[in-house]
Amino acid sequence: MKKVVLGFSGGLDTTYCVKYLTEEKGYEVHSVIVNTGGFDASELKKIEEHAYKLGVKTHTTVDAVKGYYDRIIKYLVFGNVLKNNTYPLSVSAERLVQALHIAEHVQKLNADAVAHGSTGAGNDQVRFDMVFHIMIPTVEIITPIRDLKLSREQEIAYLKEKGIEMNFEKAAYSINKGLWGTSVGGRETLNSKGLLPESAWPTQVTKHESEEVKLHFEKGELTAINDKTFSHSSEAIQYLQTIAGAYGIGRDIHVGDTIIGIKGRVGFEAAAPMVILKAHHALEKHVLTKWQLSWKDTIANFYGNWLHEGQILDPVMRDIEAFLQSSQQNVTGDVFVQLQPYRFQIIGIESKYDLMSSKFGKYGEMNSGWSGEDVRGFSKIFGNQTAMYHLIKNAADK
Amino acid sequence: MKKVVLGFSGGLDTTYCVKYLTEEKGYEVHSVIVNTGGFDASELKKIEEHAYKLGVKTHTTVDAVKGYYDRIIKYLVFGNVLKNNTYPLSVSAERLVQALHIAEHVQKLNADAVAHGSTGAGNDQVRFDMVFHIMIPTVEIITPIRDLKLSREQEIAYLKEKGIEMNFEKAAYSINKGLWGTSVGGRETLNSKGLLPESAWPTQVTKHESEEVKLHFEKGELTAINDKTFSHSSEAIQYLQTIAGAYGIGRDIHVGDTIIGIKGRVGFEAAAPMVILKAHHALEKHVLTKWQLSWKDTIANFYGNWLHEGQILDPVMRDIEAFLQSSQQNVTGDVFVQLQPYRFQIIGIESKYDLMSSKFGKYGEMNSGWSGEDVRGFSKIFGNQTAMYHLIKNAADK
Amino acid sequence: MKKVVLGFSGGLDTTYCVKYLTEEKGYEVHSVIVNTGGFDASELKKIEEHAYKLGVKTHTTVDAVKGYYDRIIKYLVFGNVLKNNTYPLSVSAERLVQALHIAEHVQKLNADAVAHGSTGAGNDQVRFDMVFHIMIPTVEIITPIRDLKLSREQEIAYLKEKGIEMNFEKAAYSINKGLWGTSVGGRETLNSKGLLPESAWPTQVTKHESEEVKLHFEKGELTAINDKTFSHSSEAIQYLQTIAGAYGIGRDIHVGDTIIGIKGRVGFEAAAPMVILKAHHALEKHVLTKWQLSWKDTIANFYGNWLHEGQILDPVMRDIEAFLQSSQQNVTGDVFVQLQPYRFQIIGIESKYDLMSSKFGKYGEMNSGWSGEDVRGFSKIFGNQTAMYHLIKNAADK
Amino acid sequence: MKKVVLGFSGGLDTTYCVKYLTEEKGYEVHSVIVNTGGFDASELKKIEEHAYKLGVKTHTTVDAVKGYYDRIIKYLVFGNVLKNNTYPLSVSAERLVQALHIAEHVQKLNADAVAHGSTGAGNDQVRFDMVFHIMIPTVEIITPIRDLKLSREQEIAYLKEKGIEMNFEKAAYSINKGLWGTSVGGRETLNSKGLLPESAWPTQVTKHESEEVKLHFEKGELTAINDKTFSHSSEAIQYLQTIAGAYGIGRDIHVGDTIIGIKGRVGFEAAAPMVILKAHHALEKHVLTKWQLSWKDTIANFYGNWLHEGQILDPVMRDIEAFLQSSQQNVTGDVFVQLQPYRFQIIGIESKYDLMSSKFGKYGEMNSGWSGEDVRGFSKIFGNQTAMYHLIKNAADK
Repeated sequence: MKKVVLGFSGGLDTTYCVKYLTEEKGYEVHSVIVNTGGFDASELKKIEEHAYKLGVKTHTTVDAVKGYYDRIIKYLVFGNVLKNNTYPLSVSAERLVQALHIAEHVQKLNADAVAHGSTGAGNDQVRFDMVFHIMIPTVEIITPIRDLKLSREQEIAYLKEKGIEMNFEKAAYSINKGLWGTSVGGRETLNSKGLLPESAWPTQVTKHESEEVKLHFEKGELTAINDKTFSHSSEAIQYLQTIAGAYGIGRDIHVGDTIIGIKGRVGFEAAAPMVILKAHHALEKHVLTKWQLSWKDTIANFYGNWLHEGQILDPVMRDIEAFLQSSQQNVTGDVFVQLQPYRFQIIGIESKYDLMSSKFGKYGEMNSGWSGEDVRGFSKIFGNQTAMYHLIKNAADK
Repeated sequence: MKKVVLGFSGGLDTTYCVKYLTEEKGYEVHSVIVNTGGFDASELKKIEEHAYKLGVKTHTTVDAVKGYYDRIIKYLVFGNVLKNNTYPLSVSAERLVQALHIAEHVQKLNADAVAHGSTGAGNDQVRFDMVFHIMIPTVEIITPIRDLKLSREQEIAYLKEKGIEMNFEKAAYSINKGLWGTSVGGRETLNSKGLLPESAWPTQVTKHESEEVKLHFEKGELTAINDKTFSHSSEAIQYLQTIAGAYGIGRDIHVGDTIIGIKGRVGFEAAAPMVILKAHHALEKHVLTKWQLSWKDTIANFYGNWLHEGQILDPVMRDIEAFLQSSQQNVTGDVFVQLQPYRFQIIGIESKYDLMSSKFGKYGEMNSGWSGEDVRGFSKIFGNQTAMYHLIKNAADK
Repeated sequence: MKKVVLGFSGGLDTTYCVKYLTEEKGYEVHSVIVNTGGFDASELKKIEEHAYKLGVKTHTTVDAVKGYYDRIIKYLVFGNVLKNNTYPLSVSAERLVQALHIAEHVQKLNADAVAHGSTGAGNDQVRFDMVFHIMIPTVEIITPIRDLKLSREQEIAYLKEKGIEMNFEKAAYSINKGLWGTSVGGRETLNSKGLLPESAWPTQVTKHESEEVKLHFEKGELTAINDKTFSHSSEAIQYLQTIAGAYGIGRDIHVGDTIIGIKGRVGFEAAAPMVILKAHHALEKHVLTKWQLSWKDTIANFYGNWLHEGQILDPVMRDIEAFLQSSQQNVTGDVFVQLQPYRFQIIGIESKYDLMSSKFGKYGEMNSGWSGEDVRGFSKIFGNQTAMYHLIKNAADK
Repeated sequence: MKKVVLGFSGGLDTTYCVKYLTEEKGYEVHSVIVNTGGFDASELKKIEEHAYKLGVKTHTTVDAVKGYYDRIIKYLVFGNVLKNNTYPLSVSAERLVQALHIAEHVQKLNADAVAHGSTGAGNDQVRFDMVFHIMIPTVEIITPIRDLKLSREQEIAYLKEKGIEMNFEKAAYSINKGLWGTSVGGRETLNSKGLLPESAWPTQVTKHESEEVKLHFEKGELTAINDKTFSHSSEAIQYLQTIAGAYGIGRDIHVGDTIIGIKGRVGFEAAAPMVILKAHHALEKHVLTKWQLSWKDTIANFYGNWLHEGQILDPVMRDIEAFLQSSQQNVTGDVFVQLQPYRFQIIGIESKYDLMSSKFGKYGEMNSGWSGEDVRGFSKIFGNQTAMYHLIKNAADK
């Protein structure tokens, strides 16, 4: 009997896939769910029970949270990556980690096929397909939902016919939760205009008083919050989420380019990611040189876009990671942040690597290291070529 | 008698310069003030009276607001330029426009020298020096404050001795206001940590109820607000400032690299600029292609940095402006913004160039133009090289 | 009867397509050949006769040489574009111009389908497919050779059966000639190692004595050679080719990334293009500022790569062209080149915009515009941030 | 008695400096020469004798060749760096290594001052000044030639008066030799036009028959030539120079931007560097992915320019080196090169990491990994956004 590994979330589409692969295609189905921080133990338990009830041969839960951070999120922080200056790339990054784990599961089980529940209209299909083509090129990829072009109603009818009991009701908003943020799609995001209603946000605003928080970074990684130290940054992120999430911080709507060329719009909430990214960037502005800041921007933008497009296995990504890692050597210090309903402010930083150190020149004050006369010389030389350009051009164009 | 043109603001430093240049250096002083949107008529009148009282031969007021927009601000909007993703470059841009006008005044008066009141510790000296070296290379540049390294107290003593009457009190916060924002420096910004107190902000928060505003862009330029049309974008900016300023929107603290290499920190408020930049960017996300967005980012970042460093006359700036201008052809449409105390949200856009048009594929929905099978082929080819890379590498490293 | 427009070269594949489309598919075939400089009048006449003999309804010859230059080559010169610093992108650019003309022909004839003879293994299929999808999205694209996966032998057998007489012998080297170079593929280029034999080069070396040539550029475009003036740059290119080609200049082998991800290797000869590109760049080094040179490089590299991948209709290409056009304002002057067998040297340039003008500072000589003292100040400020960085870091790491 | 460390070459300028610093300034002079590959043992011996004859307290010879390669040249090879696509940056790189060693010597001797013989008109003064400001910020920098603005004749007169005997004749061409090339300046390079005469080239052409050479790279570094293995790449470079130099390969004239803004023109010969850079790049084209090649280009261009401007100690250079190092993981294999008088050709490469491996798809041949149908789907999706752009734009502009 041929084996298929199925990426399984327990939702309608992947539930359909189990039955379809088993009964119509005759596969032995091995379901796997990769938790990137969106599920708690009881949810994972329910999904497992649901899988076995559907008749899978085995069901596997992969706890990928730490690896997700180590492999991707870390570099998104180093690079201050926000797609189109807005979106922390949470779903993009999750899908890749999920695909990588599923491919490893295929290798482990020596399966004949791999299946995912993506439709033919979004980004996820490309991410799964590509990672599978690269990591397990000889394994067949099966995508029932995409290939059969089934409507929701058709899937439900089929499952009911097979005697499956589950909640078939469509949620008003589709939610995707993970360590690096939660996306929220619904009626309002299908068009170019419209805010999500307050009730649509998974995390409701329950804090109204301002609060100050201190984030400690060690070589670019968040390691402590308010003197509470964490053994792994993923835990610090989760802890910060519990503090900042209740302010409704980090809610926004992203408009972006899908891999397949169409524009998409999606809401998201990402309190901890937004606070961390801005705090990290604030610290960098104090400890990095001008060209470090500039090149990090350029190269990290590409990194985010290429990751978004599923290209995490291109070796250029390793080269960029080497650059980013090197740039974090001095990104150590505390960042002070004021949290308020729906917004936050960076209060400032403290770092022994702070280039705004009071030991040397301060902006607006004279300094022992150089004189106004030096700057006069600098200005002359710094504008030299452009001065010659205009002299020569004026003479030539006469 | 030798003529000197002096950039004049009426403050302590330039007041000192008038007396020093006249009485110690024997110059005929021609003062000039270039208004980039920070002064109203009565303030300009007072400055003029002050200049004549000090004994200038002539005083000239240049109304540079429209030219300031046309020459610089327009491109900062096209490029969504925020230095270090924070600061709209208001002071940087103003100084350059002021320097350009002062240099033109020197040419017009055929003056022997040009003077500015910069100290030897900041960015402005470089901007003035460079523009003067380039535009009027044979004219002597005199910088009394920088050269004499005078303290505030010494300047005051000298002026009092000369019988000058003016307000010698030092303001708690130094303010620089212009069309594209107002900078605020004070005790808190001299160090790496600390927010400005509420009272330090020139524009106080007086609106507390949410308000929706519609911005209309025409080829990237703001031309109408809520159905009120403007003949020049600079007027639209000023009008929006009256609406958004009272929400305390656009307040932040910028940490950046000065031209002379030290780090500086400064507060600023820029309600209209921040709303315009984010609204413009939102519209662009809908109407530009992926690579237009990406290249605009890269090139506009450099544009902003190079402008900040005073290099506005480098011809590469004209080349970048040509790129930016070309990119705005379809950036036409309405952007809807919700204003709230201290923050704002982009509600959405309407544009006939919207690439998220419902006539074609929508994110998450199947489409008539292509099939899941096409995407399957795409994914295979899109990951082809990386797949080969790993196959070959795995074989080679065995 | 349904109409199909067929891109026709008269070779085996497109000959097959005519018969296949007519007899197996029942189309009325309208063949079109787009001459990008590779065919002379008699060759075009023969191809026309061949087409009519095969039974096409109409055959059209498009003389695209001038438009090819105006639309693409001009910008490749402005950008000094050599893919991977080697290849002038001749075939890539030609295919796009051909695709654009074929699409226009489809629009003109209001045809139901368009056909091209590409196989499923190269770049050309993507270029044709993409331009057609973009320009004539509702028109069916037919690719018999790709779809039927026919071998050369099968095609010949079919054509012989249909009574077609033509030269069925396979050339040892496949040649593609156009205004911007001639590609040469053969046994040696199928592997990663091996030079083409002397006899494989279409243009043999017949000149052995050194010769000097003067190229005149006007705003970046070649307009005169040795005091012979041309009304269109494409004619200047062709004239230079007759001079430089006989030296065997511009022969090389390009290794590059195909659009579909595999690596390809191909020989080419491009005497005029290589001389023009290097001469143009030499002139630019004298008349452009440092950052113009630098940004032109970066942006033109992308332009070449994106063009190579068939993306000529992405509007970002228009934005880059605007940048490049702007940058050429002063690229006017003479470039002197010494031609020798297999190589050439740039002797130097003359331009009224030459920034190496002897009127101002010369490298290695002192200058009236600035002093050693100015440079001393410059050096101090120019290294200021890095100096602070090391001071602070040394103190911190102690 | 105050100590000064003097960078010493034994030429007129630094000879003058010894006497001037000793006799006019009362310093104890410690001369140091840093050999970057341009001097042999007997030359170094003569320079040492000359120094002691002039009265230096100590003279030190630093053999910097290996460190020069490890610290700079290695990364120039990794990045295929040629300034303005022409010049291997030999002098730029040498000066920095010399400055670094001189600064270390100052630290070791705990000297009060450091002196260099640069004039006020070139790049070298900035490189020395900057490295000294950064590494030894409290040490006085003395530049007699720059400060006194002495003519050659004045220096000679002074030295003759002091009884110094040396060759005071001015060479027709000024030569600077090092591991990474030899620069040649003379009458012809002072203007924008003119080739150096055959006799001016330090290495004369003595080989006329073609010769094939095999270069072996190991992770981007040249480690063997024709089966001769070297323990350090600097030795391989020197060995290749003995083979390729006699062909007159790598001669060219560079036109570039000096740090102080003027344009400069200089001849150079660099047989080994040019062969190595092109061979290395050829190998990379086979083993790196498209985006590795592209980003390496962009980032290495900046690296070269910033190095040229003396900014080797900016930490961004370390970050770029980390990127470049990471990119070389698979740059292992043989490159075959044909040497001929004045030119060379890359014959091809052999590498186990070759992505043009015959095991997978070959350019122009069908392949088992994907089908023409896949490419058809790819083309559709790859052009999707631009297709929508034109559809929507055509509709909007009607």
